[in-house]
Amino acid sequence: MQKKEEMVAVRVSELRNLCIRRLRNVQVPENEAEIISDILIEADQRGVHSHGVVCLPRYIDLMERGKMQKKLQYQILTDSESVIILDGNHSNGQLLGAQGMKLAIDRARIYGIAAVGIRNSNHFGAGAYYSKMAALKGMIGITISTGAPTMAPWGGAERIIGNNPIAIAVPVKEKDPLILDMAMSVVAFGKITNMEKQGIPYIPEGWALDKEGKETTDISKVYSVIPVGGYKGYGLALMIDILAGILIGGATGARAGDDQDGPSQMFVAMDISKYGNEKSFNQDLADRIQEIKSCRLSEGTKEILMPGELENITYKHSLEYVNLIREIYEELQNK
Amino acid sequence: MQKKEEMVAVRVSELRNLCIRRLRNVQVPENEAEIISDILIEADQRGVHSHGVVCLPRYIDLMERGKMQKKLQYQILTDSESVIILDGNHSNGQLLGAQGMKLAIDRARIYGIAAVGIRNSNHFGAGAYYSKMAALKGMIGITISTGAPTMAPWGGAERIIGNNPIAIAVPVKEKDPLILDMAMSVVAFGKITNMEKQGIPYIPEGWALDKEGKETTDISKVYSVIPVGGYKGYGLALMIDILAGILIGGATGARAGDDQDGPSQMFVAMDISKYGNEKSFNQDLADRIQEIKSCRLSEGTKEILMPGELENITYKHSLEYVNLIREIYEELQNK
Repeated sequence: MQKKEEMVAVRVSELRNLCIRRLRNVQVPENEAEIISDILIEADQRGVHSHGVVCLPRYIDLMERGKMQKKLQYQILTDSESVIILDGNHSNGQLLGAQGMKLAIDRARIYGIAAVGIRNSNHFGAGAYYSKMAALKGMIGITISTGAPTMAPWGGAERIIGNNPIAIAVPVKEKDPLILDMAMSVVAFGKITNMEKQGIPYIPEGWALDKEGKETTDISKVYSVIPVGGYKGYGLALMIDILAGILIGGATGARAGDDQDGPSQMFVAMDISKYGNEKSFNQDLADRIQEIKSCRLSEGTKEILMPGELENITYKHSLEYVNLIREIYEELQNK
Repeated sequence: MQKKEEMVAVRVSELRNLCIRRLRNVQVPENEAEIISDILIEADQRGVHSHGVVCLPRYIDLMERGKMQKKLQYQILTDSESVIILDGNHSNGQLLGAQGMKLAIDRARIYGIAAVGIRNSNHFGAGAYYSKMAALKGMIGITISTGAPTMAPWGGAERIIGNNPIAIAVPVKEKDPLILDMAMSVVAFGKITNMEKQGIPYIPEGWALDKEGKETTDISKVYSVIPVGGYKGYGLALMIDILAGILIGGATGARAGDDQDGPSQMFVAMDISKYGNEKSFNQDLADRIQEIKSCRLSEGTKEILMPGELENITYKHSLEYVNLIREIYEELQNK
């Protein structure tokens, strides 16, 4: 039996107060509770509910069990002009992420490009948020993260590679930034889990493998998700394991997904004014967007979308009220 | 009628002399002719024949028509500590690429991360070569390039997006580096062209679109190639258009593929010693590779391959003799 998720429109200010109160209840400082809440809510406002307030009860549980710091605490491990590496001490991922990209932006202003890595971090929600921070300062932002393993290496049958996401944001003059935020699988594991909850028995071909590493469309047999482009997505996920994980002393594989170690992240900012095309960048980008938007359409397509365009539109429609799954909203009110 | 390409084993030293002679004949300086030849031949030695000596006659034609400089000439447009942008003046792409990554490596040693962009460049063969340069110096190398449009934006029917490649190389202590070198389509356009030449009438599903933007398996109707993961590969290709093109004043779309403008590239180097895990990086990476290599296999798989492993093996078997398509070898000998 298929059941559709029931949605409810919640006033953003009310949701914000609710999230802040929940965080304050576990002794998160007021200003930090605000930042965490705002980042989570923005994901819901962009329609990315998998990375929105649904995450909050899990974070609170981690805090109560001592697996996530209740207050932002980190150390600078190394600082080499364009590169800063932090030990996040298992602080909250949103707070660390916002701090990481802030440092990257400050350094990019001096050096042109800068990278900030954070090991011993935590789940940080949607990478789009941090990359967009750079775009709002007129810079290009790139965010990558390791994560819990949901994929097999190409040809393998065990789930040992994270669906490591990358988010790239580019500022567009007088318009919303372009924001590509993608994980390395054809579809998110959570999408399949949600379909299963709704009683849907089959998934399309090319989405998932069973425990033997064989492709399956039977939702009850799904064990791992298939990387985009097969060995290409596997290769990209592995490279993010190295760049956001091993390079900076962070965990990979199963350890990147457990409570003890957790994921690690890298934040890169690039100051457009230092790349030799400062005067024409805005116009060149606007021309390119125009060229793509006016591309002749294939049958069944209404409009060519730029990366993040749909989420930017959803966001604008969610400034006052945001749609939430009723179950998630009720869980938030529980305590 | 299907005809298989006939291969011929050519002594590397002889092939090198042949390439150098061809370049000298059009007034390329001796030392530059050596660099161009070595980079092209290495692609053949790695089994990547589409980016090997097959490119040389085209380069020579461009030089003879005044569309490619016969001698390396570039200007520094801007230099901001971690970022250097060059105007390549339509010099040879291999020479520019090697120079670009060399500069990136030098700056990464000081600042931790550095990016070098080159506008008005040319086709530079396989990006793997330049990223590997960084790996051979103990750094991580990332190379991206714009290119001739072979893909439609997701939902579109016109070929206006380049199959923009990314190559990432990571040094592995006492072993060959990991090298991921991939373009953004499910398969290379050249692969389909080769199949057509051999008289193969159909391609697998998911590879290509026809002129209306509809998926096709009829090889005679192929017009554009499909990006990996649909909108994901389209988004990544567009972001490379921006990072390796628009950001540094380079051309995109059709102009990135024509003789007048041509592609542009970005080379990034990251000095591993500045990322807070210098002491354990080698061991952590070796452990991760070991974990992946020993993953339980799916049926039909003999071995899990790391990115670039197959090419590294082919290279070792091609140190003295390299396999070439006879037709390509004969064309090289023509003049």
